[in-house]
Amino acid sequence: MAEFVYSFGDGSADGDGSMRVLLGGKGANLAEMTSIGLPVPPGFTLTTDVCKAFYANDRNYPEGLVEEVNAALKLLEERMGKGFGNAENPLLVSVRSGAPASMPGMMDTVLNLGLNDVTIQGVINQSQDPRFAYDSYRRFIQMYSNVVKGMDGNIMEHILEKKKEARGVEQDTDLTAEDLQQLVTDFKNSYRATLGEVFPDDPQEQLWGAIGAVFGSWMNPRAVTYRKLNAIPADWGTAVNVQGMVFGNMGNDCATGVAFTRDPATGANYFYGEYLVNAQGEDVVAGIRTPQPINRDNHQDSDLPSMEEVMPESYAQLDEIRLILEKHYKDMQDIEFTIEKGKLYMLQTRTGKRTAHAAIRVAVEIVQEGLIEEKEAVLRVNPDQLDQLLHPSLDPKAHKQVIAKGLPASPGAASGQVVFSADEAEEQSRLKRKVILVRIETSPEDIHGMHAAQGILTARGGMTSHAAVVARGMGKCCVAGCGDVKIDYEKQQFVTKSGQLIKRGEFITLDGSTGEVILGDIPKIQPEVSGDFATLMTWVDKYRRLKVRTNADTPRDSRVAREFGAEGIGLCRTEHMFFEGDRIQAVREMILADDLAGRKRALDKIMPMQKSDFIGLFREMKGLPVTIRLLDPPLHEFLPQTDDDVCELAHAVGIRFSEVKSHVEHLHEFNPMLGHRGCRLAITYPEVYDMQVRAIMEAACELIKNEGYEIVPEIMIPLIGHVNELKILRENAVEIAEAVIEEYGVKVDYLIGTMIELPRAALTADDIATQAEFFSFGTNDLTQTTYGLSRDDAGHFLPDYIERGVLEEDPFVALDQRGVGQLVKMGFELGRKTRPELKVGICGEHGGEPSSVEFCHRIGLDYVSCSPYRVPIARLAAAHAALKEE
Amino acid sequence: MAEFVYSFGDGSADGDGSMRVLLGGKGANLAEMTSIGLPVPPGFTLTTDVCKAFYANDRNYPEGLVEEVNAALKLLEERMGKGFGNAENPLLVSVRSGAPASMPGMMDTVLNLGLNDVTIQGVINQSQDPRFAYDSYRRFIQMYSNVVKGMDGNIMEHILEKKKEARGVEQDTDLTAEDLQQLVTDFKNSYRATLGEVFPDDPQEQLWGAIGAVFGSWMNPRAVTYRKLNAIPADWGTAVNVQGMVFGNMGNDCATGVAFTRDPATGANYFYGEYLVNAQGEDVVAGIRTPQPINRDNHQDSDLPSMEEVMPESYAQLDEIRLILEKHYKDMQDIEFTIEKGKLYMLQTRTGKRTAHAAIRVAVEIVQEGLIEEKEAVLRVNPDQLDQLLHPSLDPKAHKQVIAKGLPASPGAASGQVVFSADEAEEQSRLKRKVILVRIETSPEDIHGMHAAQGILTARGGMTSHAAVVARGMGKCCVAGCGDVKIDYEKQQFVTKSGQLIKRGEFITLDGSTGEVILGDIPKIQPEVSGDFATLMTWVDKYRRLKVRTNADTPRDSRVAREFGAEGIGLCRTEHMFFEGDRIQAVREMILADDLAGRKRALDKIMPMQKSDFIGLFREMKGLPVTIRLLDPPLHEFLPQTDDDVCELAHAVGIRFSEVKSHVEHLHEFNPMLGHRGCRLAITYPEVYDMQVRAIMEAACELIKNEGYEIVPEIMIPLIGHVNELKILRENAVEIAEAVIEEYGVKVDYLIGTMIELPRAALTADDIATQAEFFSFGTNDLTQTTYGLSRDDAGHFLPDYIERGVLEEDPFVALDQRGVGQLVKMGFELGRKTRPELKVGICGEHGGEPSSVEFCHRIGLDYVSCSPYRVPIARLAAAHAALKEE
Repeated sequence: MAEFVYSFGDGSADGDGSMRVLLGGKGANLAEMTSIGLPVPPGFTLTTDVCKAFYANDRNYPEGLVEEVNAALKLLEERMGKGFGNAENPLLVSVRSGAPASMPGMMDTVLNLGLNDVTIQGVINQSQDPRFAYDSYRRFIQMYSNVVKGMDGNIMEHILEKKKEARGVEQDTDLTAEDLQQLVTDFKNSYRATLGEVFPDDPQEQLWGAIGAVFGSWMNPRAVTYRKLNAIPADWGTAVNVQGMVFGNMGNDCATGVAFTRDPATGANYFYGEYLVNAQGEDVVAGIRTPQPINRDNHQDSDLPSMEEVMPESYAQLDEIRLILEKHYKDMQDIEFTIEKGKLYMLQTRTGKRTAHAAIRVAVEIVQEGLIEEKEAVLRVNPDQLDQLLHPSLDPKAHKQVIAKGLPASPGAASGQVVFSADEAEEQSRLKRKVILVRIETSPEDIHGMHAAQGILTARGGMTSHAAVVARGMGKCCVAGCGDVKIDYEKQQFVTKSGQLIKRGEFITLDGSTGEVILGDIPKIQPEVSGDFATLMTWVDKYRRLKVRTNADTPRDSRVAREFGAEGIGLCRTEHMFFEGDRIQAVREMILADDLAGRKRALDKIMPMQKSDFIGLFREMKGLPVTIRLLDPPLHEFLPQTDDDVCELAHAVGIRFSEVKSHVEHLHEFNPMLGHRGCRLAITYPEVYDMQVRAIMEAACELIKNEGYEIVPEIMIPLIGHVNELKILRENAVEIAEAVIEEYGVKVDYLIGTMIELPRAALTADDIATQAEFFSFGTNDLTQTTYGLSRDDAGHFLPDYIERGVLEEDPFVALDQRGVGQLVKMGFELGRKTRPELKVGICGEHGGEPSSVEFCHRIGLDYVSCSPYRVPIARLAAAHAALKEE
Repeated sequence: MAEFVYSFGDGSADGDGSMRVLLGGKGANLAEMTSIGLPVPPGFTLTTDVCKAFYANDRNYPEGLVEEVNAALKLLEERMGKGFGNAENPLLVSVRSGAPASMPGMMDTVLNLGLNDVTIQGVINQSQDPRFAYDSYRRFIQMYSNVVKGMDGNIMEHILEKKKEARGVEQDTDLTAEDLQQLVTDFKNSYRATLGEVFPDDPQEQLWGAIGAVFGSWMNPRAVTYRKLNAIPADWGTAVNVQGMVFGNMGNDCATGVAFTRDPATGANYFYGEYLVNAQGEDVVAGIRTPQPINRDNHQDSDLPSMEEVMPESYAQLDEIRLILEKHYKDMQDIEFTIEKGKLYMLQTRTGKRTAHAAIRVAVEIVQEGLIEEKEAVLRVNPDQLDQLLHPSLDPKAHKQVIAKGLPASPGAASGQVVFSADEAEEQSRLKRKVILVRIETSPEDIHGMHAAQGILTARGGMTSHAAVVARGMGKCCVAGCGDVKIDYEKQQFVTKSGQLIKRGEFITLDGSTGEVILGDIPKIQPEVSGDFATLMTWVDKYRRLKVRTNADTPRDSRVAREFGAEGIGLCRTEHMFFEGDRIQAVREMILADDLAGRKRALDKIMPMQKSDFIGLFREMKGLPVTIRLLDPPLHEFLPQTDDDVCELAHAVGIRFSEVKSHVEHLHEFNPMLGHRGCRLAITYPEVYDMQVRAIMEAACELIKNEGYEIVPEIMIPLIGHVNELKILRENAVEIAEAVIEEYGVKVDYLIGTMIELPRAALTADDIATQAEFFSFGTNDLTQTTYGLSRDDAGHFLPDYIERGVLEEDPFVALDQRGVGQLVKMGFELGRKTRPELKVGICGEHGGEPSSVEFCHRIGLDYVSCSPYRVPIARLAAAHAALKEE
């Protein structure tokens, strides 16, 4: 058997469908279709090994390739009953690239290769159609010069237009054989004038030219970029498929078409496709002629005759092939076919791309049809796709003028009038106006405005900036870090990079799944969760091992998350409660207090409110675990920053302006991320955590005592770097907790644990586990410290890093398994070494990202926790991880 | 042999000098002295195991202890020929604590234990001196009530004062036996009134009371704090020494004294000490009577008769013992002795504390005397002590009023008039005035003022803040992070916590070794490096393996470092060059430029200046390796921050104010430490590093070509987090370097390497080593990221952490071996796995801290690099590390 070239045809093939890596997707499927008896024009595939050897060997082909190609060509000639370059009965071929993964940016297709001034006569004689022959010839020259030689396609298009003008016709089809013959000459002249060489007449030279162009295109800048963006290794290489030509354009008994074996938009089980009579494949896609439906099941709006009506026999055969393919591949297929003189040929089959809705419906139905197992169905649905299902999306048919682009920080689509402050957002929303809140960045003080707005647009901050995190938690559309817009609060307007001016009150639309900012109010499609979704999710839950919790700070968020299947709260950020309503006042009093007594007085005001928050959460999550993180952010986040606001606060609490101002300045930090926050605050001011622990324990005791709940509160102490910190704070917490339990006289278990969010905590997790009953990896902060990368500042350069492939992925989106992941694994293993029963999860934003969820499964964590709207994604990803392991 | 009690006396002892851990320092030395035949009053030691058992067993003594003590007591009675509690011939004992390490804060000494109203008669009969007997009795009650029972010492002192008043005398010695007998009664009454119990008459009860007090004092808050501060493990425990009393106060043939076998201040080899006739040990220390010199070799200023003159026989015996002890212990000793009725007793010997000067002189001379080997001498000198030698220090005799305390950021002492700006510092210094620069914090813009000032005081920032690092580099005194002072630039004054107001122009003094800020201009002692120092350092260099380089940015610093023995530059921070003279203008032009062309124009101006900097450095370090770090800080550090300064800059470069302002704002970062800096800048603006690499290589090529130097420049790329960053920047650098080499037509080797200063870099060091020829661990930044701790902000809470023992040491001072060190080790091992010949060093501030240097030696690094003035310390620490390994 040949080493580099795999032939197929006449019902037998050297390769098969499993050899995608060697033969590319297209080549493998052509071999497979041939083997199972489908009508495929014969041909052969140069393997990806040739491509690898080509680049390993300074762009030279491996030894023996020419001989193997010649042998395969000979076999092809035999199978087609034609001769390559033969004057009487010429073999024409197509040359196509075919990589293991779909690869836009590479050389695509050259048809009709083998034509020259000699073989054209054979085609004329055989087809008895000089017009068809010259049309094929001029198309070949066009394609070859453009696709193989990189000549600007407009040059020949222009000559074609001139010719039509000269002949006074409008359509290509109106040109005569003579016109087309003349065009062949004109094209060849143009080729010579532009490229400085004569158009190759020798079919062998044409063939090797096309093969070389395919391999060369593997390193096209566009292909290189695409691979980087899609994490496709450069050393995979591409294959080349050489196949005998069949023609859909030799007359009215010829046709060509594309079809899906089910509806790719809805997943409905009917044959869905389009075809054109007397046309080559490119015509269907090009949109010059309006394609006709293949049957009446779809395209109800088309009054063109369907293939079922026009070519009933071929249609019947195609419909039969449709069933064979689905049975064989056990999935919905995307196919290309050609009918030459009434004979049907299959040119391609591949797994059909589909919407999330369709993916779920097809997966579920195909199980019900007995074609695949549940497990397989679960694996068929891409977790990332689920996002589409859970948020409104822009109507793809709507025209949209994109005026800026930022980070797709929180999915969904939203339109509204632009406002520039949280207060105004709230005000307008009370007047039932829809608004988009536009801020340079958001802070916890903007939460009420974010609630009120339809969507949020920020000029600064990354995928885990405040705006992004909070918006995702709310399930609200957000475009963040949109450096394209310059916001002027004073003038109440923003200007885009391209100079578009948007004033307060103007309508804009955000697409949180793409990061696009669009002018005006664009129509949207509302999400709809089907019964198939519910079916699929029951299978998902059957096969996953990893638990999925949610990050939720309010009863409302908790309810949403439970509906999405959350199995507990993995992270409740208590500081969010500090901002609500009139609490912020008491919080500020506490911060401004001069002494312990003053702080305690202020904390006494906050305590009942925190307690009622926790009662609400515990009620909502009845019976499920709830992890509550004690105060984390630095104190200055709670104080106003502008002089006006400072003045107002001074007035409100009855302290001199200068004193408040001095407090604010004293709390200023150069690197607040690395400053006086988390447990460090509690070492300095233990009374804060004391209050919080009391509120948690009183809430739990009250529900247990009065309502018979089962609650095991999990108290989480953040930002531990050294075991001594946790030791001290744990002792304090236990003392308070036991006191409360004694006061209420009930039995209640509780756990005390910590976030692992500093490299040192992971490195010394064996020490830390002596003081912790659970670990929760805070991978947001852990990524910041491990990478030395501030998520709030990374916007200055990180997008450029990703674009240029310095980093393959934003480490705040997908967990950096090589670096940060190494610490997670180390921390987990060290922790379990000390305490085998240690509960371990992760609560960073990564908890809802599929590749990160898979990582967490693989290393053996107990659960992931993510924002409510990502819970289904995490569940599906967890099931994928478990099933892939099998 | 007994398990818990070790006896000594009559020339034999159960223990010996090597059993310091079990017997405590004092007990071990008493045993040792007894064994070698010195006259030591007999006694016994309760081991530290008793203390451990005591705390392990809820403050109960281990079984059998009482029996063992009784047996030891019996032996002691035999050896002393007296009976404990015996009316005729009573045995009196002293009880002293004695831990393995010196431990202030613990119970110290109770003398004369065993006295009561019965045994006093025996003492009177034997001594024939009722005054002595009652004086001993009242002292015993005073000590017992205060030391054992914790009664306020002032109460009995007050009674004593009253008695003297009543008797119309001034001195204790003027009181008669009757007065003292009365005092005994008064003291006992006061004891009962204060403590609510009767003073114990039973000698056994007294003994167990004292023993219990010693063990109890192990957990005194003061002792606990001291242990934490000095990293002494709590589980070491203390021993208790019970020893037969001998009396220096039984008449004029009695005396007591303390002495050093050599002068502890200078190390000169003569007998140095003080004594008092007819006195107990405490009198020598208490300062009530003026002690007399033991000989005329020292205390030239004293006209009191010396022991050599007054008690020539005892002195001769003591002088002989001095030689025996030095020969035996092979080191300078600190001894206590008592002469009872003409008979000499040794009460204590221990290694004598000494100044740095003395330490070096003693070590060197003792080698020359043939007592110890060079290696031992090297180990005798504490690396930390060397700091004293290299900087001026405050005259210890001067009176000083400390007005505030900050961090001892850079050692030495300095006085000057207070100024509040770098410009004024420079101006005043030009007028030959000495100034102290006082700033809230310093930035690179203050460098010229820091140069001009005698010392620097900052209100914010830690041990590795800008002020601290730069000051240490300059060898200039600095007190940093002094939160005690509130600085008001407007009013040109500062106020201390205690309310002291210091205006511009007033004199203050800084002690950079203690962190004290002192009012006025305090006299100083200038440093002096002796020949002994040079001798010691040649031995040091013989035994160390680790190389010591320096962190230096200027030829001047480099020269200092070479004089101190630096073997190359481990870190040259090129950005410091960016601030000098007129360069800052060009740097700002570069930052403000709109496009590449503009940036290149500005860089072209900087390039010749950088090149001449490098030529200067290479010349100074002729033949030694020089590691140059390319630009590291974020760009905003080079721009002015106040509106006034922005305005000035706008004017200077001819750009509109608003534009400069907007640039400054655009560059603002929330966490600059984790922001757009280091290699990240070079990925965005490769032209900056291109310029720097060209300057380095041209400098090297020029010196090689024109002056025949041998130079292998080491180009260091900072802040690498991912190998791809280094790959890109390495390729750029190689391209430039090769081009320069070709231009000059010379042969030159160069290395390209990186800082390992992010956890991710350490975790993926095997990847990174594929692109690096050397690693230098930047442990300052690595500590910040590993701990999630900003050194600029840590001042808010880190001092409190250390004080309370949450952390044992400031991780910015001593490398955190458990956490950060783990990453250093991992990075080193992974790097060497990929590239066995990888050069590896550290260039953080830790490179000059002894425990960190030892760590670097232990894990196998090639070199450490530290500020010039710490080079000798690092050399000595490196030798210690190597010798300890043997």
